[in-house]
Parts: sequence; structure tokens; C-alpha cells
Amino acid sequence: MKYWLVLSILFLGIVVSAQNQGEIEKQIDEIIKELTLEEKVKMCHAQSKFSSPGVERLGIPEIWMSDGPHGVRAEIEWDSWSYAGWTNDSCTAFPALTCLASTFNPDLAYKYGVAIGEEARYRKKDILLGPGVNIYRTPLNGRNFEYMGEDPYLASVMCVPYIKGVQTNGVAACVKHYALNNQEVWRGHINVKISDRALHEIYLPAYKAAVREGGVWSIMGAYNKYNGQHTSHHEVLINGILKGAWAFDGVVVTDWGSAHDTREAALNGLDIEMGTGTDGLTSSTENAYDHYYLAKPFLELLKSGEIDESVVDDKVRRILRLMYRTNMDKNRPFGRKANQLHFNVAREVAQEGIVLLKNNKSFLPLNPETTQTIAVIGENATRMMTVGGGSSELKTVHEISPLHGIQQRFTNANIIHSMGYASGPSQYGRVIPSDLDQDSLKQAAIETAKKADVVLFVGGLNKNHEQDCENGDRKSLNLPFGQDELLDEIVAVNKNVVVVLVSGNAVAMPWQAKAKAIVQAWYLGSESGYAIADVLSGDVNPSGKLPFSFPVKLEDNGAHAFDELSYPGDGTDQVYKEDILVGYRWHDTKKIKPLYAFGYGLSYTTFKINSASVNAEEFKAGDEISLSVELSNVGQMAGSEVLQVYVRDEKSSVMRPHKELKGFKKVQLAAGQTQTIELSVAVDSFAFYDENNNDWKLEKGNYQLLIGTASNNIKKTIKVAVK
Amino acid sequence: MKYWLVLSILFLGIVVSAQNQGEIEKQIDEIIKELTLEEKVKMCHAQSKFSSPGVERLGIPEIWMSDGPHGVRAEIEWDSWSYAGWTNDSCTAFPALTCLASTFNPDLAYKYGVAIGEEARYRKKDILLGPGVNIYRTPLNGRNFEYMGEDPYLASVMCVPYIKGVQTNGVAACVKHYALNNQEVWRGHINVKISDRALHEIYLPAYKAAVREGGVWSIMGAYNKYNGQHTSHHEVLINGILKGAWAFDGVVVTDWGSAHDTREAALNGLDIEMGTGTDGLTSSTENAYDHYYLAKPFLELLKSGEIDESVVDDKVRRILRLMYRTNMDKNRPFGRKANQLHFNVAREVAQEGIVLLKNNKSFLPLNPETTQTIAVIGENATRMMTVGGGSSELKTVHEISPLHGIQQRFTNANIIHSMGYASGPSQYGRVIPSDLDQDSLKQAAIETAKKADVVLFVGGLNKNHEQDCENGDRKSLNLPFGQDELLDEIVAVNKNVVVVLVSGNAVAMPWQAKAKAIVQAWYLGSESGYAIADVLSGDVNPSGKLPFSFPVKLEDNGAHAFDELSYPGDGTDQVYKEDILVGYRWHDTKKIKPLYAFGYGLSYTTFKINSASVNAEEFKAGDEISLSVELSNVGQMAGSEVLQVYVRDEKSSVMRPHKELKGFKKVQLAAGQTQTIELSVAVDSFAFYDENNNDWKLEKGNYQLLIGTASNNIKKTIKVAVK
Repeated sequence: MKYWLVLSILFLGIVVSAQNQGEIEKQIDEIIKELTLEEKVKMCHAQSKFSSPGVERLGIPEIWMSDGPHGVRAEIEWDSWSYAGWTNDSCTAFPALTCLASTFNPDLAYKYGVAIGEEARYRKKDILLGPGVNIYRTPLNGRNFEYMGEDPYLASVMCVPYIKGVQTNGVAACVKHYALNNQEVWRGHINVKISDRALHEIYLPAYKAAVREGGVWSIMGAYNKYNGQHTSHHEVLINGILKGAWAFDGVVVTDWGSAHDTREAALNGLDIEMGTGTDGLTSSTENAYDHYYLAKPFLELLKSGEIDESVVDDKVRRILRLMYRTNMDKNRPFGRKANQLHFNVAREVAQEGIVLLKNNKSFLPLNPETTQTIAVIGENATRMMTVGGGSSELKTVHEISPLHGIQQRFTNANIIHSMGYASGPSQYGRVIPSDLDQDSLKQAAIETAKKADVVLFVGGLNKNHEQDCENGDRKSLNLPFGQDELLDEIVAVNKNVVVVLVSGNAVAMPWQAKAKAIVQAWYLGSESGYAIADVLSGDVNPSGKLPFSFPVKLEDNGAHAFDELSYPGDGTDQVYKEDILVGYRWHDTKKIKPLYAFGYGLSYTTFKINSASVNAEEFKAGDEISLSVELSNVGQMAGSEVLQVYVRDEKSSVMRPHKELKGFKKVQLAAGQTQTIELSVAVDSFAFYDENNNDWKLEKGNYQLLIGTASNNIKKTIKVAVK
Repeated sequence: MKYWLVLSILFLGIVVSAQNQGEIEKQIDEIIKELTLEEKVKMCHAQSKFSSPGVERLGIPEIWMSDGPHGVRAEIEWDSWSYAGWTNDSCTAFPALTCLASTFNPDLAYKYGVAIGEEARYRKKDILLGPGVNIYRTPLNGRNFEYMGEDPYLASVMCVPYIKGVQTNGVAACVKHYALNNQEVWRGHINVKISDRALHEIYLPAYKAAVREGGVWSIMGAYNKYNGQHTSHHEVLINGILKGAWAFDGVVVTDWGSAHDTREAALNGLDIEMGTGTDGLTSSTENAYDHYYLAKPFLELLKSGEIDESVVDDKVRRILRLMYRTNMDKNRPFGRKANQLHFNVAREVAQEGIVLLKNNKSFLPLNPETTQTIAVIGENATRMMTVGGGSSELKTVHEISPLHGIQQRFTNANIIHSMGYASGPSQYGRVIPSDLDQDSLKQAAIETAKKADVVLFVGGLNKNHEQDCENGDRKSLNLPFGQDELLDEIVAVNKNVVVVLVSGNAVAMPWQAKAKAIVQAWYLGSESGYAIADVLSGDVNPSGKLPFSFPVKLEDNGAHAFDELSYPGDGTDQVYKEDILVGYRWHDTKKIKPLYAFGYGLSYTTFKINSASVNAEEFKAGDEISLSVELSNVGQMAGSEVLQVYVRDEKSSVMRPHKELKGFKKVQLAAGQTQTIELSVAVDSFAFYDENNNDWKLEKGNYQLLIGTASNNIKKTIKVAVK
């Protein structure tokens, strides 16, 4: 498109000499020398809901933040959560991060990051609060939709390009929520107890990748505790690991209101305290933020000498460093607001993230040329999913509903529609009459289903409290609002039922066998309905892969295989009893068959792995294994497949999961095409975290490389030895 | 101060290649080629109270504006005039522009501009709506305090450095209100009729200087009409003069709500339409601004071809050019918010702008070492003057009241205080009980005055409606709220009365003979009380000069010497019957002695002009006359004097004013010091506007250079000939 030319003129036309990091550090030193103690402390806490102060007299700018991670949030008032009523703050709603993870396509994550970063930059934001990389431990977690699934390798590979994309705009990504915020129930105080091994192998790798590979400029603490200390100011997590072992040089921000102690905040690495709250207290005064832990109480400890000035200097140095990377970087581009290019990115991610779970006798795609009656049933066919859900709520320029998308594409069909069920009032004022007769909605839907050649049931979860929503967990693995019962009745009157699940979590599917096809459609944002119609119509051949396992029943999930202390805890403590066996690691190792496995996803075409080989049989630490896999598209349609490489340690001094993902590559092949794919797997990734030595340990011995197209669909196994 | 060093590191540390204007124009051409008609039109009108849209998909930023001209206004809501409740928007309140003009010190105007521009930049404003240079025609005009007095040369010389100072920050100044907005009564529709000569000689020169010498990047139209057409989209004023003769390459913005016609707005040079208003209509919708004259109605005329696309292209080109100078200039510094350096600038301007009008037997300064009782009487001793007045209202970090300033300086005195009178509720909610007994306030003041050795009466006008306030004119030249009567009674009980007038306009002074001293203290902003105490105590020797004449009575002012058609007009039209004889031109030419003359102001020391000479006796067009004046400070104290050079045409083919200011220089001399001052006067400035040829005309013949320290205190006369 021609205006890329203009952009390059705009952004690159002005040649600026590179900012040398060493020079910047010297400048930061000079600035710190000039600052008063009060000015330094001021920089370490909020001045409003989403900004922190600079230094007025020196022209050090303020820092402005916006909630992410799926779009740049609408403007809110200075010191309340009410929206400010601006009209320039409509955004592109990108698909939820679960969908991005499902693409298994890091290039798309980069595009996503660039685009959302452009919107943040245009809107004068310095930090975008995302991506979220908390590991999917339980399908009940209300916030899973904002994260990247259950596998630390997948989350690592997908978050790095997102971060890099955002940060090309001179906007800091803020990877969150560090760490172990894996449920919403009691999130403010629950104390997580976990083995060092599970911490390092499962819950931290994505953060490490964000820091070491993504070069992320900020990170957000979590609400919960770990080993008795709040994670936002944690001796081990922040000082020991993040800023120590990983040498993170950026800024640690609280989650909003996650600071709880001045000494810990000061000494355990918190840099900016946000959201501690002034509501209803002194919101209209200049001093409404003085009571923050890192405000006056911090200043007093500094003045008395109980805390050394070097402590605040380190925070200020990190904050200034972030500024030199963002609002003090003169090379910063201008950004762009919601626009067609961004909608295109959103649609592309949605198209590639949708997962085809079932497709009995190639029932899908539906031919748009066919004259037939299609019943679209289910509240999610029309419900806005960018509204609700908590801090990720968006004000988008448009959100194409599934019904609208289907109507636009299937113009030869007679589309009839019935709501089927009602979910009740959302947290944002959608009021359903209290005397509503759910049964009448159901009956109407069944009548509609009877009239149709095909039923497209668009259901799932939504963004209400105790669904896919912040600050609460789901109560059940089953679909809510009577959808299971409704589906039972629909499949009884119509055999051609396609279930489209709009959700960010796994659900139970008691009706699974009776559906002709099942599509996992996530929360897809602005282009939702278009992307769904793209897949249903076959305009797009689905290629998404599940980023987490769908258990048959809740107890099949590792976190739920134990007592309440494992989930949700006893109200004070919680023990991650499944340890490292999260997700498919649990299913595989415990031989509990999932309903749908991690890495699983169908295509309208058929792929065949013909052969696989490695460049050697023996490797040593530090080596990269080069893997060649010959893949054929033996079906009738172009499509994409995700080659997945898992590793199994044949014999280990410690218990190891049955297999673990260590490499993947998404490949597009024309019908009939065969291609040899090169993948690289790092031998060091075979290591486990050795609790005896508090370090990673690569044991010598034999390992298996398991090559397939899903965690439960391994086609080739290659043995290699590590000497 | 050492942090200037840091600033230079911050601002200059990154070497950026110069933006070549020719390259920028090429880039603008490229951008315009890419824009849709809708995008172009969108850039030409507001999207909120103080912002206009950019182009989302291309990253062309929005333009954010802030009211000036005395400080950067507090943040207001998106589409209402309510304040948004931010706490990062407190500013430095600089002295009102009348005070700046009184300094006769262009260096201070530059400092003022730099400082206010820094605050605008820090606050992410792209256009600061100021300075105001409407000529002071009548002392009743409610908005005179925002302008630079009655003389076109003084206003020109003082506005140019202000503009340059603002614009060094990458913030556009916006000189206003173009043109002939010389009263607030009927400002929205009054049709000004005026001779071409008065227009060009009196009312336009400051705008011309702003454009040609100041290089101002934007200009604001006015509310009123001129010759039957609204000035914000005026064929002659904008197309003919501003963008034609003066080759202005910047942006014409409306005053808020001053556009009235799409065709005129489109074709007569308006570039951005602001403030047409959505209140109560559709304020929460994205389309609330579609009805603007330069929105949908404009788009329709463009689409139909009735208006050529080149018309909107020219507007967009100007808007983009402004952006390349402001928010798209990568060399833009970061700005700074209110801070001590800015307060210092505000105080310095206030110190130099205060005018000592009377000082009987050197009654002032008051020795702060003396143990005595000082009665501070008058509402203005404690009244906040940054609140009220209209769009120039400010939320300042602090405003030192006169009482507080006096208390701080005169620590050896017994300071007693009495309000004396009450002005009633201000427009911003200051409620005085309706049954308030003004008489009891007066009696209390008189009792207070009786007890004192010295009375400091701090009165004047205030920022209420029909005082010094937008959208209304004063009703009388006299002091309001019974101050004249109160002063009569005070001087009857205490002979040592000093009157400090806080106002932006001339007032009548029936009590003038009975006051020991009179100080014109303007609206001085944040440092008000300190600056007043500086002068009263003699810490600062006053050096301000009146930028407009104080008539004895209203009819002595030229605008009021005729019938109502001259002021305020008949409700439809108004004729400037005094023509070019504005201010001292009227007093001098008509031999009507003012109470205090233009250019007048006393010092605590005494200056003497010993001699004056020029470098030649004959000059020709284009020459600069070099004038040497020997000045002595023959008093006991260091001080500053303003040498003023007026020109008189001895014989002219047209009526000319008795004399006109054509040069001045402020000089500081130690006690006893003598110095030879060099001044330069342009021969071309002797020209008059020749209505027969619609151009300036320099007639040959003899001229007198009148050198003095006030318009009514000419000490040397030198004849020169123009050949």
C-alpha cells in the first residue's frame, strides 16, 4: 500500500544520531545528581489512575500508562474509574492473547505488537500494560483469556515478538503479572507455595524470555503472595531473580493496588507504585497520593537514613532509563490510531487463531454458494465481547458480531436467528428483566433450529463476573446459562449442528459427540464475526492449535486433582500440588486423556509428515540441533500446519514430564505441496531446574525428539544423545 | 544554576540533522496526496473543546491547544467547560500582558514566552492561545488586561519576542484576536466600520509584526465583524492582508465559536474551526462535530465540486506545516512545568511592570526597618485574581496575595487588615451573603485606617463580569464597589494613604490629589504580593511605564468623545470615529490632558537626559537613524528608565497625530551613573497609510524626533529631513 511510503518519509526522514546507551547512562547520572529527595520519591508513585509524575522544573516528562493487552483502553478520569467521555479514544480490539497463542505464529505476534504499540504511541501512552504471560493452570481462572496458555515455551516464543513490536514504537511493554497470579479468587492475598522447580520450569520462563530475549522495559508485579511475601515487592522474585539473575534493567510497576508495605516496596525492587487508591478520600487534592507506600512513608525512611538514598536512586535510574527509551527518545515514531491496517492485523490473528476442534466428515466448510437456511443460535452471536472482563475492556471502533459476519458472507443463505439463552446483567449495565423466561428463549431457539438446514450455535462464556473476567473465577467447567441443556435439545431436532465457542477457557462438552463440528473461536475483537465467517466459509483454512488442554472434566486438570489447598487454597495459602505437571504435562504423564489436547487443531486439508532427521546423533551443551522434517499437504486445499517438536528425557535423575514442547514452526503449503522444514532445538532446553543446586542442569544421556502436529499426535521420534 | 547544565544535556545532547524547509514542504505534498477528502476535512475542525484531529492511519498527530496568554489553562473535560479535576495542571500565572507591556522590556517578553511555552510543551500542548494584541481603544473593554496597550509600535515590539520565546519550545503561539475585537459588548456580531488608515496604522501593525518579525505559526480570528463580514473568515483581513500581503504561512484558527458560514470559512482563509459547540446536543457521540461549518457542510461542497479540492489542500498544508513545527518536530524540547525559574520570571516581569503613578515627597518606598502600624485595606489585598476573567483563568501553583507579600516583607511593622468593601459573588462561586452590610465593612476599614501610621489601600477592579473579564465591558471609568467613597473617608482620617491599583484598565481617580502615592499594580499572577512588596519596600526601584493613557474622565478618551455609534455601536454597527487618534494620539492632538499619560511612570531615583544627537540630518527611505542620548541617574538609587522616541511630521498632506512612538530602550543606571544610549529609528516608520493608493507612503520633508521619558515628558527635539 502506497501510504507505507509516506510513513517511511514521516518516520525515517529525519536522521538522528544513535543514542549511545553509555552516554544515556551518564546523562541519567547527571540528572540524578540534580534531583531532590522529594523529586526522586515523587517519581516512584502515581499521580493519577494511570500516570506518574516527572520532574517539573527539569522537563522530565510524566509517564502515562494504559491498560492492555488487547487494545489501548479508553481514557478514564483523573482519579476515578469512570470513563472520561473522550471521542478520540476508540481503538482496534485485537484478539485476546489466548487466540494469539493459538496461532503458533511469532510473526503475527510481532505484527500485533507493532500495531497495538502504534495505537498506544498515537494516544501518548508511554507504557502499555501487557502482554500477560501467566501460565494457564486451571480452566477456572477468570483471566486466562489475557494470557498465552499452559506451556512456558509457547508463551515465551509468542510474547517476545509482541514485546519487540510494541517497543519499536517507543512504548514500553509491561509484561504481567509477575508472578504466580494464576487465579482470580483471593488474588489480593493468597499465598502461593510451589516448588522451586515448578517456579522455574513452568511459571517463570515466559518472564525470563520477555526480559532476556524481548528486552522488555517494564514488568508488572502481581496481587498475590509467594512464600509469604507480596510479589510486587518480593525479595526473591524481584531482587534475586528478575533484577539479579536476569539482570533486568527496566522498571517494576505494581499491579493497581498491589503494594502493601513501604520497607518491602523500597528494598525489594518495586520502582513505581500504582493504584493504591485515593477514591473517596482526598481525590481532588494535590496530596491524594501522599499516603502511597512509596510516597511520604518512603520519603521519611530516606530522610531518617533508615533507607539509603541509593535505594531511591536505583528506582529513579530505572525510571529515567525507561523514559530515554520512550518519551525522551527523540527517534520515537508518531504512532497511528485504529485504522484499516490494524483491523487487518486483528483479522489475520483471528483467522489463524481459530481452532477447528471437530469436523465430522468434513462438515465444514459451509459453501456460501449454497441456498439453504442457517440458524444462528446463541447469545454470543450478537454479544459484544470487548465490553466487560475487567481492565482489558475496550472501546473499539467496531466489533463485528458473529451473526453480522455470517450474514455478510452467507448472502445466498436464509439466515435465521434466535438468542437461545440470556446470561443476565453484565457488570456494565446490560439489564435483562428479572422475570425473563429463559425457557421461552430456549423454546424459540428450538423452533428456529427445526426450520434450519444447518445450526450454527454460537455460545461459550462471556465477560461477566465469574466467567472470563478479572477478579473472579469460574464456578464450573461446564458452559453456563443452560447452554448444555439447550444444545442437547437442539441436536435432538437438528443433526447438522456446528458449535462455535466464544471463550478464553476450556469448557466441558457433554454434547461433543452430537455436534457435527466444533470451532474454538476465542475473543476475537474488532473483526470477530468476519474471521469466524472466513473460517466457516472456507475462505480461510483453519490453522490454530490449542495453547492449553481441554480436560474432559475438571478433576482431569492437574490443579484440580488434589484437595482445595491446591485450588483455590484455604483462603490464606495455596499449594501447587501438581508441581511441574501443568496442562499436557499432567495429562501425558498421568495418562489422563484430554478432551482436546494441547497443540491440537484440525485443518480442512490433510498434512502428512513423511520423514524427519537430525544433523547429528550426539550433541553437547550449547548446541543447536538442526531438524529436517518433510511435510506434505495431501489434501485438496492450501493450508497451514504447525510442526511441533517435543522432547522426552529417556532417563533422568528426577521425575520429568512425559514430554515438553521445545520447538515449533508454522508452515503454509499449497494443496499437494511437499516441503522440507528446518527446525532448530536448543540442547540446553533439555535441562531441568535442579533444586539441589538452585540452577538448571543438563543431564547427559538419551533424549527423544517427538515430532508431530499436536501433543497427542506424534508421528516421528528421533533419538539423540547428549554427551 | 547548575541544572541548566542538565537541561542542555537533555535538550541538546541528541544531534539531529536540520529539517530543511524545502524537504518538509515536499513531505507535506506527499502526505496530502495520500489523504482522502474526508481526512482532509476532519483536520479542519475540532474534535473536542481544545483539540483537532490528525490522521489516524498515517500517524499524523492531533493538535492540542490551551488557552493563554498568562499561563497554561487547567485541563477541562472533553466536551464541556467543566474542569477535569486533574492535579498535574497547576501552572505559573505570569503577569497579565498589560503588565508585560508596561515593562517596555522586550528581553522580558522573550523570557516570558520561553517560560510559558515550556509549560505548554510539558503539558503536551501544540498551540498556546496567545499573545493578545488587540489595541486598547477604550478603558471599558473587559479584555484589555490580556492585551498590550494602546500603541501599535509598543505592542509590536513586545509581542515579537513573546512569540519567539514560546515557539522555541516547539509550541505555536497564536496571536489574537484578528482583528478589531476592541470591546466585549456585542462581540459576537458587532460590525466594525473603520478607515483603512486606522486599520493599517493602529489596529494591524502588531499582527503584522507577529507574522513578519515574530514568524508566528498561528493566528486566531475574532468574534466581531468588519465591513459586514465575520473576521474569522474574512476576504480582506485574511485572504487580502494576512495571507496575501503579509504572506502568512501558518494556520488561522477561529475564536471559540466565531465561525458562521461554510462558504466564507472555506474560501476566506479559515483553517481550523473551534468551539462552534456541541453542548447539550450530541456531546457523547463521535459525530458531535459533524455540523461544524468546516465539517460535513464543507465536505459536501467539496464533493459536489462547488469548492475546489485545492481549497482544503491549502488548509491541510498549513496545518501540517504547523505540525512539522510543533508535534512533528523531532527536535522539540521537552518543556518544563511550573517551577521556581518560572516563578522568578513572573516576579521579574511584575517588578518591572508595576508603574509608580504618584509619589508625593518621596513617600515611597516605605522602609521595612521602621517599626510602625500599616493598615492594608481593600478586597484586592487578598482576592485571587487568577480566578475569573474568562478564558485566561488559571489554576496556579500559588498566588501570593498583596497582603501576604506585605506581611512577609514588613516584618518590623504591625500589619492590620480590613477588607473595606466586598465585590459580591464572582462568576466562579464566591458567594457573599446577600444581606451583607457593605457599610459595616466600610466602618471597620475606617477604624483600621485611624489606627495606622500608613494605609496601603489595595483596590482596583477584579475578574468579575463587567470588570476585567471576557464577554462584557465595564459600565464606568470609576472604581466599583464604593471604593471612591471609601477612599474619600479613609484619606479624611489618615493622611498617609498609598493606593495600589490592581486592574488591567485605566480608572478615574477622584481621590488622586489626596493620596500620598499611587501604584498601578496590574494583575501580577503567582508572585503578585511579593512583587508589590518589592516595590513598596524599595527592594525594587519601579520602572514600569503606562502602555495606555489614563483619561481624567471617560469622555476624554477618543472612542468616547462621540456618540454611541462610536462606542458601543448601535447593536449592529459601530464606527471608530476617533479614527487614528487612539490613546495618546487623541490626547496630544486634541490637547486633552490625561490624568496619566502613555509612557509615563515614576522612579525612586531621578533621571536626566543631558543631550541627544543623530548621525545625520538628512535621510532617505530605508535608512535607519542612529540616535545617541546621554542619560544620567542623578538620584540616590540605582534604577531603570525607558528612553522613548516619538516622531512628529512637521507638515503632511494628511492629518497626522501630534506624535507617535517609533523607538524606545530601557536602560539601567547606577546612582550617579551617566551613559550614552544608542537607539535606532527606521525612517520607513515615518510613513502613513495612504488611502488613495492603499499603501504606505513616506513623504519627504522635515520630521521631529522627540526624546523623553514619557509621552508627556519630552526633553529633546531633533529635526531630521527625509529627502
